[in-house]
Amino acid sequence: MSLTYFIIVSAKEGKNMSDSEKHLFFMQKALDMAHEAKGTTFPNPAVGAVIVSHNRVIAHGATEKCGGKHAEIVALHQAGDNARGSTLYVTLEPCCHHGRTSPCIDSIISHGIKRVFVAMEDPNPLVQGKSIKILQNEGIEVNVGLLATEATRLNEDFLWDITQKKAWITLKLALTLDGKIADYKGDSKWITSSQSREFVQLLRKRHAAVGVGITTLQMDDPKLTARCEKTFFPARIVFSPDETLPANSFFIRNASQVRSVVVLRGGEQRIETSSDGVELWHTGEKDPLRSLHSFVAMAHQQHLSSILIEGGQRLGSLFLQAGLVNRIYLFYGNKILGRGKEGLLFSSGLSIDKCITLENTEHLVFGSDIMITGKPVLS
Amino acid sequence: MSLTYFIIVSAKEGKNMSDSEKHLFFMQKALDMAHEAKGTTFPNPAVGAVIVSHNRVIAHGATEKCGGKHAEIVALHQAGDNARGSTLYVTLEPCCHHGRTSPCIDSIISHGIKRVFVAMEDPNPLVQGKSIKILQNEGIEVNVGLLATEATRLNEDFLWDITQKKAWITLKLALTLDGKIADYKGDSKWITSSQSREFVQLLRKRHAAVGVGITTLQMDDPKLTARCEKTFFPARIVFSPDETLPANSFFIRNASQVRSVVVLRGGEQRIETSSDGVELWHTGEKDPLRSLHSFVAMAHQQHLSSILIEGGQRLGSLFLQAGLVNRIYLFYGNKILGRGKEGLLFSSGLSIDKCITLENTEHLVFGSDIMITGKPVLS
Repeated sequence: MSLTYFIIVSAKEGKNMSDSEKHLFFMQKALDMAHEAKGTTFPNPAVGAVIVSHNRVIAHGATEKCGGKHAEIVALHQAGDNARGSTLYVTLEPCCHHGRTSPCIDSIISHGIKRVFVAMEDPNPLVQGKSIKILQNEGIEVNVGLLATEATRLNEDFLWDITQKKAWITLKLALTLDGKIADYKGDSKWITSSQSREFVQLLRKRHAAVGVGITTLQMDDPKLTARCEKTFFPARIVFSPDETLPANSFFIRNASQVRSVVVLRGGEQRIETSSDGVELWHTGEKDPLRSLHSFVAMAHQQHLSSILIEGGQRLGSLFLQAGLVNRIYLFYGNKILGRGKEGLLFSSGLSIDKCITLENTEHLVFGSDIMITGKPVLS
Repeated sequence: MSLTYFIIVSAKEGKNMSDSEKHLFFMQKALDMAHEAKGTTFPNPAVGAVIVSHNRVIAHGATEKCGGKHAEIVALHQAGDNARGSTLYVTLEPCCHHGRTSPCIDSIISHGIKRVFVAMEDPNPLVQGKSIKILQNEGIEVNVGLLATEATRLNEDFLWDITQKKAWITLKLALTLDGKIADYKGDSKWITSSQSREFVQLLRKRHAAVGVGITTLQMDDPKLTARCEKTFFPARIVFSPDETLPANSFFIRNASQVRSVVVLRGGEQRIETSSDGVELWHTGEKDPLRSLHSFVAMAHQQHLSSILIEGGQRLGSLFLQAGLVNRIYLFYGNKILGRGKEGLLFSSGLSIDKCITLENTEHLVFGSDIMITGKPVLS
């Protein structure tokens, strides 16, 4: 929820808002709806829509699960005839092409919407401003750019995937204050607070897949599920040098329940399915860094648009060294170990003058932990 | 400056304050004065005093440099006859004993002060509430405890030193986001932002001495001065296994300008002065950890009540392992190196279940850096 929203609500509740405050308020409401849906709409982006008539919300909607309706359609169906002459607030440019559903703009026009506020243009080459022009040609007033920054951040993974044709990679690390991910005995449970771990559950829910290295699978036998969301499982990915995964692992035992992928280096690029129901992705590249580059392109083709990489040391370091991490979350637990497993260990270190820095950093406190997030770039 | 203060000032400026708001306001003013003086009053604590008559500040003062006047005396001299019937706000219980100066309570009584607000009792065994009783016996109304937490935090080092008979140790570390203090080539300039480094200058100014290990001296030849304060130098301490320091180092060349100490392990506990004017402190303990325990007691006796330890890896790790760090400042520069010198490296690591955690943590952002401070305790 943006600061603007809070200010308006706290200062204006029960009072008259100015026109521009109203527009912000309703677009924020559409963004809130999109946030709610985030993580359940793959491969579609999460979109929110609000229909307003005479300063009152008469309908709202968010993208339904894959194959379901788009946000605008949900809201328009809810509004029915009342939509005539009203204003639509939508967080992403409506579609103008036939996909799983028919074009949203047809429905907007036929429902008699008079004015549309669009937070941002859809960078999908099939849309890219086309819908806006069509609506304007139909005599509908269209405003673009309200809360665009917030809308872009919300779907940063989707926007990256669709424009770059590579999956978006989020790297999460849980570190001690002295940069360790495990103590000298190898124990890592728990470095961070329960509040941090709850937030990680939310992160899992918001990604198309969760990925770990084979070592993490062997040592922790993780579930890789988003426990906060009963009905939705992100896909699970294990990066392994060979096909042999522990048969009694949670991963193998539950491969029929949820999409499960093992990423293998080398060979010829191809995808097979094992008897357990596990997809075996051969990246076609022997070199670990090249293999990851190949992986993100394969993930895009396979409709896994965003992957949350959850340590350990090796996998996180490889993704960072490959320059493939789009967003990093560093959780610092309130612990000093003095000695232990380093969170990151590159094959060759960077120098102070030329190293990785984080752009657009944000900080959040979770209990006694602090979290830093940003976009890693090589300076 | 406390939040309370801001709220009052912003909400009440130009309006009437309630009595309790006024008391907070004036005590905060006294605390502000004490903060200004912090670091220039050794071996005295930094104290602030404000005299108020008819809701107006008629005089104020802070502890003068060593041997100079106490805060109350500065303010009382400024107020002169106008002090009669007025209220004194002072951040620490006034003294009742003859030290370098005569007892402050005599002056408070003779100036006809009617009411005194004291933020906190002086834990010095020579005072410890005695002054408060004497003032009350003289018919003066005394209130104790207003902004006591803030006043305690301000002089935490002094309070520790006087009650524990050991110098207060602050450890400062400048780390990359992955916990390194130097890159793989050993470069450490600069991990943190200029804003962080400016704050470290302020930290230096607020301590009686700044300490480094011999390796840091050899590699960086640091000035160890507080550049933000032209007239004040904290004392400088180097921890060395033997007496041989580089003769052309800034430390040796300027030993006559400022108190300079070399701490040596083993031998018999004694203090000598070298021909360069350097004090050689033999701790009498060969074991590195025992030697530091001996050191903090010697520093107390030698009137160095607070020491800022500025890395490197070995010295910081030793102080933490010895359980002698009273406050740690961890500055995280916005850098990831992937490989390099670890900020801390204990001789034996701690386990997740039983490691060091920070109590009463605070976070501050300095440019693109984040700083975490707290009191390290073994959980």
